[in-house]
Amino acid sequence: MQKENTQQMPKINYATDITDDMKEAKKDYLDRHTPHVVAPDRVQKGKPFAVTVKMGRDYVHPDVVDHHIQTLQLFNGDTLLATATYNPGATTGGMDEAKGYTQVTFQISLGRKGKLTAMSYCTKHGLWVSEEKIVEVE
Amino acid sequence: MQKENTQQMPKINYATDITDDMKEAKKDYLDRHTPHVVAPDRVQKGKPFAVTVKMGRDYVHPDVVDHHIQTLQLFNGDTLLATATYNPGATTGGMDEAKGYTQVTFQISLGRKGKLTAMSYCTKHGLWVSEEKIVEVE
Amino acid sequence: MQKENTQQMPKINYATDITDDMKEAKKDYLDRHTPHVVAPDRVQKGKPFAVTVKMGRDYVHPDVVDHHIQTLQLFNGDTLLATATYNPGATTGGMDEAKGYTQVTFQISLGRKGKLTAMSYCTKHGLWVSEEKIVEVE
Amino acid sequence: MQKENTQQMPKINYATDITDDMKEAKKDYLDRHTPHVVAPDRVQKGKPFAVTVKMGRDYVHPDVVDHHIQTLQLFNGDTLLATATYNPGATTGGMDEAKGYTQVTFQISLGRKGKLTAMSYCTKHGLWVSEEKIVEVE
Repeated sequence: MQKENTQQMPKINYATDITDDMKEAKKDYLDRHTPHVVAPDRVQKGKPFAVTVKMGRDYVHPDVVDHHIQTLQLFNGDTLLATATYNPGATTGGMDEAKGYTQVTFQISLGRKGKLTAMSYCTKHGLWVSEEKIVEVE
Repeated sequence: MQKENTQQMPKINYATDITDDMKEAKKDYLDRHTPHVVAPDRVQKGKPFAVTVKMGRDYVHPDVVDHHIQTLQLFNGDTLLATATYNPGATTGGMDEAKGYTQVTFQISLGRKGKLTAMSYCTKHGLWVSEEKIVEVE
Repeated sequence: MQKENTQQMPKINYATDITDDMKEAKKDYLDRHTPHVVAPDRVQKGKPFAVTVKMGRDYVHPDVVDHHIQTLQLFNGDTLLATATYNPGATTGGMDEAKGYTQVTFQISLGRKGKLTAMSYCTKHGLWVSEEKIVEVE
Repeated sequence: MQKENTQQMPKINYATDITDDMKEAKKDYLDRHTPHVVAPDRVQKGKPFAVTVKMGRDYVHPDVVDHHIQTLQLFNGDTLLATATYNPGATTGGMDEAKGYTQVTFQISLGRKGKLTAMSYCTKHGLWVSEEKIVEVE
């Protein structure tokens, strides 16, 4: 019998709409933990293009030794394309209390329509999955 | 609004009971892709112990260049403890058509009750999550 | 007694000047396996900037299932800042016989002068280290 | 022109004989940072066997948030077989000031004579390479 996702660990946090009526702390928590895939809407078959995976839109995540965004992974459907792993302090020059703009730009190409998502791992708050970014191939 | 898991990629495949009335191919597919956490029921606080993450019980997964179990991760709740990554052919001596007993034994210790799960990644069939293994600490 | 590097495995291949009198096959082999760090000469303390690690200058490495650039790592001196790992076919859309422009752009910042190098891993030809890129901090 | 290893970063620290006349602090530093490959002298072709990569013989390395053994890699000659990555605190139950017995046991098999080495990464003291372990195949 298939288990319910809610009963299973590790929890997979999926991208959630951030709404005006949320409390500021919740907006911050959700926004800074949500990865986004930035890619063209349309690419040429087999031609390399840049895909950026970045955390958050309006809020910045800490990058301190015991709390940072460690991993950013890029998937196409169920297939893992690439993984970036940061050591703590890399985005802040190792400065205490600092916040870091954790992002990575991979160069990939596609043979057919891509369904790109990102999964990130925060060392305190676990796994997070982006919304899907469709990339058409022509 | 929280999205349904079923609409999201990458799909997270959770451990499922394998039943007698399943077709052989389905049993094989599910069994060989399901990671298991093998650990003591009870450990001493702060004392190192071995945790094995292994794939399947009765069926063996291929380990060929384009299809293998690439990653085994050990979580405690939402927290990633350790990751093992295999390159293709490592479990089979690089032999073609071979199947490989992909497993890893980590040495960890716990400060309080552990809720251990494993997540594995197959290069053709994506992400799979084990059942939870509770480890009591005394 | 310190062992000589030449007696030790895995071999670490260091960036080598490619000279006009080398044979074409050797130029190709050396160039396509050599990682380069592309970064500004000078940055502001604690301000994020992009660092690209890319393979080769004039020749392109294959990205096929049994032969590809799997890992690009960025070091500052002896300290690992970030690692990117590609699965085979990610840079070529999974097309056979294809060559791939394997590169990654990390976003980092520095608290003091950086001495950046990259280490790459080719699944057939092992570990390669770039020349050092000095980044002054003001 | 091939560069000298001594001029290149990241420094690769090779296994060194620890001698009685070394100061205690140096023995400790060298021993706890040196990875060892523990494997049978002789295995059967294509049959899986366990290989343990462990740090040190007589001294234990810290496993605290800003100083731990992050990565253990197993090579056969120039070929990477498997990588284990630990997050800080995994070997000590997250306890402060604790030291951790960082080790991992991979299951591999060989098609011909193996020349196994391990490379480890300490988050403060960089890259270290074990002595070579020869595994005969019959």
